Amino acid sequence: MRRLINPTTQEISECLTRPVLESNDLKELVVQMRKDILFRGDIALIDYTARFDRVNIRTLVMEEDEIEAIAETVSPELKQAIQTAAKNISRFHESQRIDVKKIETAPGILCWQEQKAIEKVGLYIPGGTAPLFSTVLMLGLPAQIAGCKEIVLCTPPNQEGEISPAIAYAAQIAGITKIVTVGGIQAIIAMAYGTESVPSVDKIFGPGNQYVTAAKQVVGADQCAIDMPAGPSEVMVIADKSAYPAFIAADLLSQAEHGSDSQVILVTDHPPILDAVAEELDRQLALLGRKVLANDALENSVMLCVSDQHKMIEIANQYAAEHLIIATEKPNDIASEIRHAGSVFMGHYTPESAGDYASGTNHTLPTNGWARSYSGVNLDAFTKKITYQEISAVGLQSIGNTIEVMAAAESLDAHKNAVTVRLNQLSSNEI
Amino acid sequence: MRRLINPTTQEISECLTRPVLESNDLKELVVQMRKDILFRGDIALIDYTARFDRVNIRTLVMEEDEIEAIAETVSPELKQAIQTAAKNISRFHESQRIDVKKIETAPGILCWQEQKAIEKVGLYIPGGTAPLFSTVLMLGLPAQIAGCKEIVLCTPPNQEGEISPAIAYAAQIAGITKIVTVGGIQAIIAMAYGTESVPSVDKIFGPGNQYVTAAKQVVGADQCAIDMPAGPSEVMVIADKSAYPAFIAADLLSQAEHGSDSQVILVTDHPPILDAVAEELDRQLALLGRKVLANDALENSVMLCVSDQHKMIEIANQYAAEHLIIATEKPNDIASEIRHAGSVFMGHYTPESAGDYASGTNHTLPTNGWARSYSGVNLDAFTKKITYQEISAVGLQSIGNTIEVMAAAESLDAHKNAVTVRLNQLSSNEI
Repeated sequence: MRRLINPTTQEISECLTRPVLESNDLKELVVQMRKDILFRGDIALIDYTARFDRVNIRTLVMEEDEIEAIAETVSPELKQAIQTAAKNISRFHESQRIDVKKIETAPGILCWQEQKAIEKVGLYIPGGTAPLFSTVLMLGLPAQIAGCKEIVLCTPPNQEGEISPAIAYAAQIAGITKIVTVGGIQAIIAMAYGTESVPSVDKIFGPGNQYVTAAKQVVGADQCAIDMPAGPSEVMVIADKSAYPAFIAADLLSQAEHGSDSQVILVTDHPPILDAVAEELDRQLALLGRKVLANDALENSVMLCVSDQHKMIEIANQYAAEHLIIATEKPNDIASEIRHAGSVFMGHYTPESAGDYASGTNHTLPTNGWARSYSGVNLDAFTKKITYQEISAVGLQSIGNTIEVMAAAESLDAHKNAVTVRLNQLSSNEI
Repeated sequence: MRRLINPTTQEISECLTRPVLESNDLKELVVQMRKDILFRGDIALIDYTARFDRVNIRTLVMEEDEIEAIAETVSPELKQAIQTAAKNISRFHESQRIDVKKIETAPGILCWQEQKAIEKVGLYIPGGTAPLFSTVLMLGLPAQIAGCKEIVLCTPPNQEGEISPAIAYAAQIAGITKIVTVGGIQAIIAMAYGTESVPSVDKIFGPGNQYVTAAKQVVGADQCAIDMPAGPSEVMVIADKSAYPAFIAADLLSQAEHGSDSQVILVTDHPPILDAVAEELDRQLALLGRKVLANDALENSVMLCVSDQHKMIEIANQYAAEHLIIATEKPNDIASEIRHAGSVFMGHYTPESAGDYASGTNHTLPTNGWARSYSGVNLDAFTKKITYQEISAVGLQSIGNTIEVMAAAESLDAHKNAVTVRLNQLSSNEI
């Protein structure tokens, strides 16, 4: 990892800049595939699966007993772990329900919001060598808690045309019964527009590679909502002299192992920690299965040593990290000053991987600086809020003139008249 | 207005289908203009304003005393109305703050969310013959309440290079000090990327024509968040035999006068109301300043007469209206069954224009069926939620194994190791 000691503002800006991702070519591909899938439906999905995933599938939607049979093969130990994680995730997301608060903004004028489920949601779970079944919990459980009526899960099939047992089991735990063995661009298009077998949904969630991301961008612009823009995963660790170098190295590596484009940043005000962490990185890296990927990521990463806590906070807010670990003696002092981050990990015994799996928070988080404007996935993401207003005759008599004056000033006669006809009727009733 | 009596499912679907808006050509234009504005900055903004708005402006950002002087010319009556509306809007949006709830998902594991302001926001206010100063309140007040630090308002200049006094006054009331006299595509690009005079923002809000919409789509995909996809405004009125035909006609017209592409739908289970409303429409339409636009909109609109309340509810949920007026004797019976709508207006004395201006709810709402997945603008829209977790040593000892098992099953060694190094340290301390 590169080191910068007392970097200038310019140097900090440079090292916090994310790589720019160009996706115009991919969008062309998405538009072409969309045309084909709209025309040929399921057959097109089967064809693309043969071409891109190199496997011939006959049916797209798994039967419930098929899911059950595959899920059954998960080890009892992993089943138990998934259940424990599910319990914590459910507990936290259930706490995010909002109560209806009826507000009398003025006498006779009642306004309120109600949180209602998004009815049909699509969850995308990437395949690959290590299918991320934890994401099934992170998306499926909040969808259930929100009360989504139709939950579709798309995930690419493996070489046997099957899905991972852990994904099947996590889906069962999350109450998901509709699993479609299709991945990539074709899965996103299928969920956005619907085919014979795949229902169209109102919102699509989930991580994915650059193809999936491009497809979500295309459908998100005018067809169906998406959870958030995606980018490579990232962690920033803030460490003071109380931090344990071995813990920091482990946290940095657990982000770095995601992929060679992962972003990993250490910020400290305690210079001796740099050597100690570097040493631990070398030691721990050698033992990892994904050491090549992790090493690539570290080569693009940086350790920043600055003068004080204030400077560390400033850098954290400038970066707006997806994951922010505050490995300091008094993490609250720093946390209270953080204005932008996806998820924050407080103190020495809160590794990022706790949030990835089992603390209860969601691991689907804004990357690439989007934490400035986006929340991570939470119960809100599976719901929308409808506003209501109920005005009594007396209420309208008191607010009516305000509305008439404003509508007239905007030259919207009919808006004004909608009040006037009512006020006239009320005053004629009074006579 | 066309009438359908006891329509078939097929007929209902057809008449609820929104027109498809093609914007690919406009996106090309946006991409071209973006290139130019990134290169030439302010000068490009001034050039585009000369070309599209046909006015030469010398400075882009208004001085505070300039805003004040223009605002001063607003009539006392309108000032009073704006203040009253602002009070109600503020009261309702202030009630949307969420309290921090710390949840112990398991012993020693604390999770919570905090709502934090989006730091820099851009508000777009369309110009035209009747500048919509009410939208300044609807976007500016929640931004202030959320605590947004930088609020930029862009609005096109009139032929004198100035902005409407009512916009200036509403901006003052909402505490907005940065007004940029630029509109259209160029305004959206300026706020998304920044120029010498216009700061870049994290999220852009506000209505606009097809050009503004296309620009928001382009920047929303990968540069900055946007409030929601836009489409023509729409209202659905549900009326039973208790409804007043004059009120219904006024409400339908107040939507129709927005533009010839506005969508206006009446659903009733009381056949005699159709003639009565049609008569009122004719009578009221003749008196409107914008009668040509309103008449065009009505020609594309429809009255549906169905058998019962259940059917009315079904149609309302199928349509997912931006504005839903429930003009029935017991509006709660219907409201409780509504699953998708932007804003709901309950009973006979709650015209849509009340929500447009002064009841307190927001008038920036999802159109075009987006109410299925999007909320209208509310305090959430100007904030994001950061999640936090704090795990004690004891908490990690209890949850650690769950994380290790799950990480191992996803082949993420470093994720597992981030727990293992901590558990090892804890157990060695205990010896």
